[in-house]
Amino acid sequence: MSAEATVELIRVRYGETDQMGHAYYANYLYWFEQARGAWCRARGFNYSDIEKLGILMPVVEVHARYRGEVHYDDAIEVKVWAGEIKRAAIKFDYEIRVQGREGVVTEGYSWHVFMSPETRKAITLPSEIREWMTRSPYPNSENMA
Amino acid sequence: MSAEATVELIRVRYGETDQMGHAYYANYLYWFEQARGAWCRARGFNYSDIEKLGILMPVVEVHARYRGEVHYDDAIEVKVWAGEIKRAAIKFDYEIRVQGREGVVTEGYSWHVFMSPETRKAITLPSEIREWMTRSPYPNSENMA
Amino acid sequence: MSAEATVELIRVRYGETDQMGHAYYANYLYWFEQARGAWCRARGFNYSDIEKLGILMPVVEVHARYRGEVHYDDAIEVKVWAGEIKRAAIKFDYEIRVQGREGVVTEGYSWHVFMSPETRKAITLPSEIREWMTRSPYPNSENMA
Amino acid sequence: MSAEATVELIRVRYGETDQMGHAYYANYLYWFEQARGAWCRARGFNYSDIEKLGILMPVVEVHARYRGEVHYDDAIEVKVWAGEIKRAAIKFDYEIRVQGREGVVTEGYSWHVFMSPETRKAITLPSEIREWMTRSPYPNSENMA
Repeated sequence: MSAEATVELIRVRYGETDQMGHAYYANYLYWFEQARGAWCRARGFNYSDIEKLGILMPVVEVHARYRGEVHYDDAIEVKVWAGEIKRAAIKFDYEIRVQGREGVVTEGYSWHVFMSPETRKAITLPSEIREWMTRSPYPNSENMA
Repeated sequence: MSAEATVELIRVRYGETDQMGHAYYANYLYWFEQARGAWCRARGFNYSDIEKLGILMPVVEVHARYRGEVHYDDAIEVKVWAGEIKRAAIKFDYEIRVQGREGVVTEGYSWHVFMSPETRKAITLPSEIREWMTRSPYPNSENMA
Repeated sequence: MSAEATVELIRVRYGETDQMGHAYYANYLYWFEQARGAWCRARGFNYSDIEKLGILMPVVEVHARYRGEVHYDDAIEVKVWAGEIKRAAIKFDYEIRVQGREGVVTEGYSWHVFMSPETRKAITLPSEIREWMTRSPYPNSENMA
Repeated sequence: MSAEATVELIRVRYGETDQMGHAYYANYLYWFEQARGAWCRARGFNYSDIEKLGILMPVVEVHARYRGEVHYDDAIEVKVWAGEIKRAAIKFDYEIRVQGREGVVTEGYSWHVFMSPETRKAITLPSEIREWMTRSPYPNSENMA
């Protein structure tokens, strides 16, 4: 299995700040999700392709540790990789850096189960999608936000 | 047709503010929507009931005029009424007040078309739902946020 | 120290759902925050009062476990209590239930540090605010959303 | 005055969809704002620079007309230009297209006043900032999301 990371570049929106003057804590979960989408595209598929094949991937657990502040207009790099892939679940790990600043400002992870949209129950990941998720990212994977 | 208004009480969230120190302009559209939901419940149905009957009500136009600031923890009253009901569209009007303060801080409207989820095309509003939308609100309509 | 809980009632917004048909995972963090605000009010102060006294309470860690689905228009009860209060940090615990349904659908916690807005550094919680946070909730604490 | 447009490329997030299966109407206002930020950067300054000079630009009016649907993972182009600049106010116009699809899916405008953060009152735009806002975009303005 390849745990190679994908990095997604995101510009922090004004509406993502709060009156404390930095990014509100819930927005990091949107950024994690955007990075997961980029992680898929870097491997040649879209998250929508998974849904079209009848697999939903709801989050069952999320954790984030906020070490530093992220501000409006910061260009942040969200690094994401598959930390673990089980029969019916996948864990993504995240690290967020601010361009031009040292160190990781936020780190986190999320666990997702593979679920049937009809039964709303966990299902074993089909081998085709497993192959997608364990392949290496393509060398020239475009990284448009 | 009854254009009687429903008033929904909302407490402004911290995450709805931005670094300017007041509520970010997009959040008013969430509040409008929450008030539309209350408007339905005051008339004895849920917006979900409409969807269950095969009618979606996507917004096709929205307008808001921001006259005053709304802050964190403000208790706001979102007044909503059906300004116009056409064969295949409905207009909602809104006025937002802050409890304990004079005057309207924001006013707006939104136009929604009645749409089939299958064809994604506009459809004539079934008379049953039209009756729901034109009835007066129930006297003791509960107003839980 | 009193770890008595406060329960905040929230109606799930349409804009809080995603195309999977249930509430998007980031919104729970908004609900946690709204419940923290209610927790303060139940003890006779507003979160803003803390800020006015020169204390910010940024989140440094958050965790959520999603056990069941939450849908549009669900009336959810967000139970919050102070699980731990340290010299310069506080932990809130959360449990979310859906009215009319059995069991906890989501549980989580968040850690917040007490921070000076000027130095952006952790500070010891002033005893006045500590007293606010450790008192019991008022018997008739209003619970307006 | 130059009304040359800037185009910002945005990838629609999963959390920006709702259970109707397309982007929720409030998110377009976030996209408008992100495009305004890009419009500033294309002219050699950041929106933050304006705030640092003591000018806030709160929205006083917004309008959007939704003509077509925008879906998860769509790559959208948000075109923004200054439709009008008055002594103490500026109007931005917007057009949103989906890459690979014909036509404008959404159009809108927003009016912003120039406001002092201290007095919270409208002020005349300083000539330095007026010059920034009326200059042509730089030829190689980077367009990172």
